[in-house]
Amino acid sequence: MRTSQYILATLKETPSDAEIVSHQLMLRAGMIRRLASGLYTWLPSGLRVLRKVEAIVRDEMEKAGAIEMLMPVIQPADLWVESGRWEQFGPELLRIKDRHNREFALGPTHEEVITEFVRKEISSYKQLPLNLFQVQTKVRDEVRPRFGVMRAREFTMKDAYSFHLSDTCLDATYRVMHQAYCNIFERIGLEYRPVIADTGSIGGSVSHEFHVLAESGEDAIAFSSGSDYAANIEKAEAVMPTEARPEPSKDLNTFATPEAKTIDELKKKHGVKPHRCVKTLIVYGTPNEDGQRGLVALVVRGDHELNELKAEKHPLCDSPLEFAKDEDIIANLGAAPGSLGPVGLSIPVIVDRSASILADFVAGANKDGEHYSGINFDRDVTQYDIADLRNVVEGDISPCGQGTLSIKRGIEVGHIFQLGTKYSEAMKAGVLNEEGKNQIMTMGCYGIGVSRIVAAAIEQHNDKNGILWPQSIAPFQLAIVPMNMHKSHRIPDIAERIYQELSAAGIEVLFDDRKERPGVMFNDMELIGIPHTLVIGERNLDNNQVEYKSRDGQTAELFDVENVVAELIAKIRG
Amino acid sequence: MRTSQYILATLKETPSDAEIVSHQLMLRAGMIRRLASGLYTWLPSGLRVLRKVEAIVRDEMEKAGAIEMLMPVIQPADLWVESGRWEQFGPELLRIKDRHNREFALGPTHEEVITEFVRKEISSYKQLPLNLFQVQTKVRDEVRPRFGVMRAREFTMKDAYSFHLSDTCLDATYRVMHQAYCNIFERIGLEYRPVIADTGSIGGSVSHEFHVLAESGEDAIAFSSGSDYAANIEKAEAVMPTEARPEPSKDLNTFATPEAKTIDELKKKHGVKPHRCVKTLIVYGTPNEDGQRGLVALVVRGDHELNELKAEKHPLCDSPLEFAKDEDIIANLGAAPGSLGPVGLSIPVIVDRSASILADFVAGANKDGEHYSGINFDRDVTQYDIADLRNVVEGDISPCGQGTLSIKRGIEVGHIFQLGTKYSEAMKAGVLNEEGKNQIMTMGCYGIGVSRIVAAAIEQHNDKNGILWPQSIAPFQLAIVPMNMHKSHRIPDIAERIYQELSAAGIEVLFDDRKERPGVMFNDMELIGIPHTLVIGERNLDNNQVEYKSRDGQTAELFDVENVVAELIAKIRG
Repeated sequence: MRTSQYILATLKETPSDAEIVSHQLMLRAGMIRRLASGLYTWLPSGLRVLRKVEAIVRDEMEKAGAIEMLMPVIQPADLWVESGRWEQFGPELLRIKDRHNREFALGPTHEEVITEFVRKEISSYKQLPLNLFQVQTKVRDEVRPRFGVMRAREFTMKDAYSFHLSDTCLDATYRVMHQAYCNIFERIGLEYRPVIADTGSIGGSVSHEFHVLAESGEDAIAFSSGSDYAANIEKAEAVMPTEARPEPSKDLNTFATPEAKTIDELKKKHGVKPHRCVKTLIVYGTPNEDGQRGLVALVVRGDHELNELKAEKHPLCDSPLEFAKDEDIIANLGAAPGSLGPVGLSIPVIVDRSASILADFVAGANKDGEHYSGINFDRDVTQYDIADLRNVVEGDISPCGQGTLSIKRGIEVGHIFQLGTKYSEAMKAGVLNEEGKNQIMTMGCYGIGVSRIVAAAIEQHNDKNGILWPQSIAPFQLAIVPMNMHKSHRIPDIAERIYQELSAAGIEVLFDDRKERPGVMFNDMELIGIPHTLVIGERNLDNNQVEYKSRDGQTAELFDVENVVAELIAKIRG
Repeated sequence: MRTSQYILATLKETPSDAEIVSHQLMLRAGMIRRLASGLYTWLPSGLRVLRKVEAIVRDEMEKAGAIEMLMPVIQPADLWVESGRWEQFGPELLRIKDRHNREFALGPTHEEVITEFVRKEISSYKQLPLNLFQVQTKVRDEVRPRFGVMRAREFTMKDAYSFHLSDTCLDATYRVMHQAYCNIFERIGLEYRPVIADTGSIGGSVSHEFHVLAESGEDAIAFSSGSDYAANIEKAEAVMPTEARPEPSKDLNTFATPEAKTIDELKKKHGVKPHRCVKTLIVYGTPNEDGQRGLVALVVRGDHELNELKAEKHPLCDSPLEFAKDEDIIANLGAAPGSLGPVGLSIPVIVDRSASILADFVAGANKDGEHYSGINFDRDVTQYDIADLRNVVEGDISPCGQGTLSIKRGIEVGHIFQLGTKYSEAMKAGVLNEEGKNQIMTMGCYGIGVSRIVAAAIEQHNDKNGILWPQSIAPFQLAIVPMNMHKSHRIPDIAERIYQELSAAGIEVLFDDRKERPGVMFNDMELIGIPHTLVIGERNLDNNQVEYKSRDGQTAELFDVENVVAELIAKIRG
């Protein structure tokens, strides 16, 4: 490709609305442009990368035995009603009406559509297992689209769905997909980790996310120092401390705290150490056997954070978790948030494991402007449950039993689920089993954010001058930069010949034939992140040589003009 | 691919809701399944064909210098308001609202989005010309989706848009695209024709459609016997007859026609020959200089059909053309449709060219239940315009001046337009020209219905047993059918070895390893339309031979087992 016949669209300035480096560089390198909030046009260079990611994903899926098909973006509402998700899904599901006022959704995922397809098409256990995938445009009406294609409203996803007669068979395919995902990220050349994950709104039991590790990642991941254990912090278990709770040594006393409503204020104004006090958070739930909705108290240590996903899994709490309104708290408990605590509460109290081994601790007295000191469980708080309610922190004991946890940031680029029968049960997707009886299938689903991988790769591979593409997904393999081509006779000839020969050999070359100063050209090629550059200039040509440079700055060498094509091919294919 | 690990999904019965052969065969051959009205899932075999068409289109576009990018399906309404199409486009434009109640459209085409992109990104004439394309999902909320993927609501399209400083430059790119389209259809292996077309709702001046010729085509195309001239009947000019109008020989007379309101009834009940009478059609328009809306009469010969697109281009008529309501006709003209004619009308009369050379002809008398005979222009009808108002018919003189016209049916699979400044003017898309002044760009646009090509290819290439794919887009190149494989020792070994060797050589093989009777397997492979089949059976193996058959029934030969792989590769690569 010649730059003169291409849209380079590089920008010198960093666009002010781009917060993270991948978004900035995708704009600056002319990969994407914003059409509207969360809607992006892929420019030629961006699309080349996207297609390469797509091709690797497709190839590994096929190697793993999955079969490609293509489902519509527009999905009839009745299937979503049948699965129950028409009600469950929030406004992220973009709902539309056609000219006949019939309801449809723009698909964020395709569980319903594929289950509808399989229940109609597959009738016998002999046709199982089946693993079907597509690479397709997805729509999710994000409440806050941001970070460019990282969290867009329209994006490209690879989604696969597997169907089985037994959980054993599902587990086998799940493992194959797990390996295929590892192969994909290895092959692209990304530092990644599969981590144990929550199943969220997709449902199911077992689930793993695949994260590209990067400082800018939205997710926190807990890694064990003693094993391969890795889990999204949403899911990582905070184990029961091994030490026993000390015996009470202090009496229960109130003290006035009119200006201390937060842990931080308690510390500053009263010298209370955060790990020696507790936070009491009030949520809605079903506290009594009568099934009436009411309030539930959650207690975590002052220096810990509530993990909402863990809390909402407790049978007493609503799911999704909802914090109680101030007026409900005051009406029921007689005090406002900031002065609440577990002593003498008339509602159920659930205590986090780490908080449950505190003795002589501090908490609100359920009277505005007062706290208790010297609180002890069993003596002062007699009715309570113990549960894992908090996010793990650095140094926690790993739930695998070996080593301690450290926390890193990651970008979720893949997510695989053992769905079980969530959709097949709701939609009555069964086959005849070996005994000739109808049996509901069990399902897995496997997603990869194809467009998000492009951004994640940049988050992991950039420097001050621009992108450093892994060779596997670079938009071009080599840039040819002829210096001051228009002032020379021999430079254009040699550049053209090398360009032609490399192109004929199947190398993807960007030939910068613009009438620009060499500096401008180098900057653009570095910004775009092309792994290999060939510089053709008068001075080296006097010695019949041309200069090779790698984008990572590791290599710079001179080649004789005669050998350069063969040398470059060897280097690129190497 | 092994059929045991694939979704063949062939059907024995023809689905009752499929009207045309391509829709029937795409369902029966397991290429598509209906999800909802106008929404189809592409099954593995269908998707393989779709991707091959896409690859050929992409390759020829790139060879022609176009650059690929990818724009969102979801487009902000404000761009459509700016171009004026938010109002102009009917309910085919699927309009949606996001969670913030902002309006968007699901793109049926991308003129607005690309013009928005180019006006922001391109600032100088030096960056022109530019030809950008995408292969993408399009949405059109058809009033009556039908014929499977032929007229679907969600479909795959290649759309390209070119930008120029001058019409000369636009014309040059238009010619390049015309040739690229010819290359695409040649390469796929379709009998096609480029035809002169109307520009419709896209706008612009010059336009060609590309039609795949097939009996089932929705469009009628007029071909000249004497030249390359071909035009959509919507657009084909009915030239002014060369013969002069005869002198009047009869007096104007009324006759009672209480039961003759149609041309057919006039013929049956009164012996009037259709080509000796005229139809008078009343439409809305702007008949007077005051600009007030009123009625206009259109007169065509009794045996001819009004061409609405021609009529709406007449300055007196509304565009789009609207036929007058009966009550307006009766109130203004004093008679109902069925008794109307050009004599003594108080509204403007536009007479079709062929009707204008009639003498002594018959028409309604503008009095219910009465007709005139012996009508003559100038004597009985003094005020009238002459224009081309009708569809051409077989035997008409070709507008190219050579030969006569014949009419064939075609399926529109491509459409190219010289748009001019319709969008760039409305959206103020200019660049600095050589004089440093802002100049509005001129545009072309070039569409191909990628998914529709798949159906069109089947319409043209099928027989009673199924599809006959052109080799270029067949889902598989070769089928291996081992007969009664499970009763034999040597058949599985030989079949497996041939399958492995051909696959390794890059041949796309469908290996039918099902435990089915040979008849079932042959039927399926023929239905799917795989161009080459290799049959492996005991009897031929006794002579160390296997049998080759071509899908078109032209070739059947025996190969020695030793040579078969090389022979097949030679045959397929031909």
